[in-house]
Amino acid sequence: MPEFTEDSNFQELSAERFGAHNDEGPMTLEIFTQLMKQFYDLGWMRGSGGALGCVSGKQLMISPSALQKERIKPADVFLYDLVSKTEIQRPINKKITVSSCSVLFSLIMNQTGSECVIHTHSKAANLITQLISGDTFEISHQEYIKGIYNPFSGHALKYNDTLIIPIINNRPSESLLLNPIEGVIQAYPQAIAVLVRNHGLFVWGPTWESAKIMVECIDYLLELSLDMLKNNIPLVKEDVQPERQDSVDYLETVFSP
Amino acid sequence: MPEFTEDSNFQELSAERFGAHNDEGPMTLEIFTQLMKQFYDLGWMRGSGGALGCVSGKQLMISPSALQKERIKPADVFLYDLVSKTEIQRPINKKITVSSCSVLFSLIMNQTGSECVIHTHSKAANLITQLISGDTFEISHQEYIKGIYNPFSGHALKYNDTLIIPIINNRPSESLLLNPIEGVIQAYPQAIAVLVRNHGLFVWGPTWESAKIMVECIDYLLELSLDMLKNNIPLVKEDVQPERQDSVDYLETVFSP
Amino acid sequence: MPEFTEDSNFQELSAERFGAHNDEGPMTLEIFTQLMKQFYDLGWMRGSGGALGCVSGKQLMISPSALQKERIKPADVFLYDLVSKTEIQRPINKKITVSSCSVLFSLIMNQTGSECVIHTHSKAANLITQLISGDTFEISHQEYIKGIYNPFSGHALKYNDTLIIPIINNRPSESLLLNPIEGVIQAYPQAIAVLVRNHGLFVWGPTWESAKIMVECIDYLLELSLDMLKNNIPLVKEDVQPERQDSVDYLETVFSP
Amino acid sequence: MPEFTEDSNFQELSAERFGAHNDEGPMTLEIFTQLMKQFYDLGWMRGSGGALGCVSGKQLMISPSALQKERIKPADVFLYDLVSKTEIQRPINKKITVSSCSVLFSLIMNQTGSECVIHTHSKAANLITQLISGDTFEISHQEYIKGIYNPFSGHALKYNDTLIIPIINNRPSESLLLNPIEGVIQAYPQAIAVLVRNHGLFVWGPTWESAKIMVECIDYLLELSLDMLKNNIPLVKEDVQPERQDSVDYLETVFSP
Repeated sequence: MPEFTEDSNFQELSAERFGAHNDEGPMTLEIFTQLMKQFYDLGWMRGSGGALGCVSGKQLMISPSALQKERIKPADVFLYDLVSKTEIQRPINKKITVSSCSVLFSLIMNQTGSECVIHTHSKAANLITQLISGDTFEISHQEYIKGIYNPFSGHALKYNDTLIIPIINNRPSESLLLNPIEGVIQAYPQAIAVLVRNHGLFVWGPTWESAKIMVECIDYLLELSLDMLKNNIPLVKEDVQPERQDSVDYLETVFSP
Repeated sequence: MPEFTEDSNFQELSAERFGAHNDEGPMTLEIFTQLMKQFYDLGWMRGSGGALGCVSGKQLMISPSALQKERIKPADVFLYDLVSKTEIQRPINKKITVSSCSVLFSLIMNQTGSECVIHTHSKAANLITQLISGDTFEISHQEYIKGIYNPFSGHALKYNDTLIIPIINNRPSESLLLNPIEGVIQAYPQAIAVLVRNHGLFVWGPTWESAKIMVECIDYLLELSLDMLKNNIPLVKEDVQPERQDSVDYLETVFSP
Repeated sequence: MPEFTEDSNFQELSAERFGAHNDEGPMTLEIFTQLMKQFYDLGWMRGSGGALGCVSGKQLMISPSALQKERIKPADVFLYDLVSKTEIQRPINKKITVSSCSVLFSLIMNQTGSECVIHTHSKAANLITQLISGDTFEISHQEYIKGIYNPFSGHALKYNDTLIIPIINNRPSESLLLNPIEGVIQAYPQAIAVLVRNHGLFVWGPTWESAKIMVECIDYLLELSLDMLKNNIPLVKEDVQPERQDSVDYLETVFSP
Repeated sequence: MPEFTEDSNFQELSAERFGAHNDEGPMTLEIFTQLMKQFYDLGWMRGSGGALGCVSGKQLMISPSALQKERIKPADVFLYDLVSKTEIQRPINKKITVSSCSVLFSLIMNQTGSECVIHTHSKAANLITQLISGDTFEISHQEYIKGIYNPFSGHALKYNDTLIIPIINNRPSESLLLNPIEGVIQAYPQAIAVLVRNHGLFVWGPTWESAKIMVECIDYLLELSLDMLKNNIPLVKEDVQPERQDSVDYLETVFSP
């Protein structure tokens, strides 16, 4: 396997591209490992599965592949310099490699300008791809849709918008998902997530806060959708009486409770 | 958006109206943030959703809209003085605004005299509104109904009373829920909660302890009801043999295990 | 309501009757409050519901009725002296009363010699009583049945024994459950638990450790039974090929994994 | 019951056989008790059920049978010396015995060279054995299958491989499971787990990290399978278009997210 530092998408990532627009504060190694533990507790990173990649200032942080996600410590995180394009921290144990999602993360960051990508393995994300035979998951008229960012408009989706998440088939290894994910980003430029059949979910956002908020909103909607399907309730509704609403700035609405 | 301090309901809120009748102790910023974390863990405030508003002495505390609810710190809470009607604390980050539920909270507090309003996004609250097409959720003959306060009688509901929670349709923004909620309070003056279809739940009570206890009782009843509906068990039962019971003071019974 | 210290069953409780046979150590106020928090987290004491009563040496500890169970502190627990039959600790707030289960706990302790009674409100305990119309819950051929103590033999139940838990109907107040529970103990002298329809579960055992272990085993079996019923799997099986097994001492087997 | 130190499989266990190949670090008594608590929280060791056995250097650690698994402390763990074949630590309370799984653990370790065996009581493991009447659980085409180690090849299973877990019937006591488990290891030499009907799951691996990761992957797959069966989705799929993949070293892939 070639070094991640030679990855073409990583090579193109420029620190200048990413703004200092975080709401809570910049990602740190402490928050990074806290979030992995939190995602484990939520059932999304069991069995060492799942991964996290995040730009913080001039650095890129990526989770290791060999370690239990709820037990990783700051020193276990891979750290890359976006200016010199070098690895500046890695676990002491040389057998531990960077997440095999690293090349997917750099692709997504390079193509979309997202600072953060989260990869989860929730059971809802897996099961929904087995119940939907088509190539998209779609849902409308749900409050949590207002938690989703539309990178085209810079605004949040509205309650009665339809959230569309493409579904791709799983492949034997993460690197083989590179082309399908690149295809999805081109076919659905407004997408902020992709479901991988029998596998899990990738979510990306302009900041770590927005990516985390979106993965929580999406997982809620996936779990809810499983129950709706069980009760034969359609996921997408026709607007019987469409309501007018002015578009609002993402920051003002995405977090609005 | 106008400043919340100009909100007419907030302007009418008087500190004298609220008694010092708490059971555990007055709400503090520490308890406020602990509860947000607890509600997140219970699945009720994921994706930065949900909100909390509470009167404590001469102050009104309201959660911010832009922050992850399990990570907010005391300094992130909006604090208003009920006497001077001014904002006395807000997050340093000026992009963070007060919860868009603030105007709903002041309405409910002003109309009902409730000290505390909790807004949650549990999946049970959402799903039940999709399974019930009418405009109320009703259940009887459940122990947890004894945890519900009847503001008319000042007593707790009895085991075989029917708990009625109105259901309103969701609207594109929180502020558009103002009129429907005001209508509900007038149509169901004994209500202590309202369900918003495809969205979540609002619960209010005379103290923060009673509001929190009621939201837990109600969510339990909603989850149970989903299972009862699945098994074709009616939520409301006829009293085959009505039992006489003297009314008891709320404080004496609402908490009784 | 009369003082609990005047309760006839409490008056008959003798400290000498209870041995110092604990496995982990005697119940303390710290463990008492830890367990309440743990039961809350397990979903068994939400909305201030549920209760715990436990003899420790010459003292009887009972949970308060007015407080959120995950937040009670050692000073909130009611403490009674079994020799002088007096109250030796109570919460400072005089509005807080001892659990209305106290008279049920003293009855069960006096009738069965149990040191500890746990009252929980799990959804499984509630739902199973709505699915079973008869007056007992019965299950056999489950490993967790080996976690149940038979007070007649002093041994644990065997894997292929049938665990029988009586079900009684709920009443408007806890005190009205006194007679039905007394009737159940006389009708099922080997019972270590009773289910109350639309309400919850009471479990008692010779030590706090055994009562806690049994409530966990039973709740597991109740949840499993709900899934078995959904799949039309009978809860009690005929022994096609009964296996002989020597009875073993409870302490040796009840905890065996 | 004979002393575990006289057990023939324990007598044959040689410290030299086990390499110092851990990824995170050697098992310690602190990690041992942390894991028991974690497995309790995951619902796998309720009611004092479940057990853990692990080789660390020249020592073998086994959990006690009499204690609540979330409360055990380092001093409660049984410790055996693999060189002198003696017990070097045990709980002070003489009534507490070593887990009755100890003889199963030494058998599995001796037969397979596994350093760690984990025994869990998840509801999914129990229920799946009631829904599958045959003697194996099989699943293919799932990402989490890549978390399973094939002891024959030394590699991880591939995404489209079929994971096979034998199912045996439960017996009245753990010691009676000795022969069935020995039979399973001989009939399925590539097995890294066995399901015990109406009881639970045993998983073993070359290191404690791999055993823990595998039990998490398997439990995820079991829970998912319950939902797949409910939706009439076959657990094993025909490869419509088999994909070629070079075998990869276990350490490189099993942990890959």
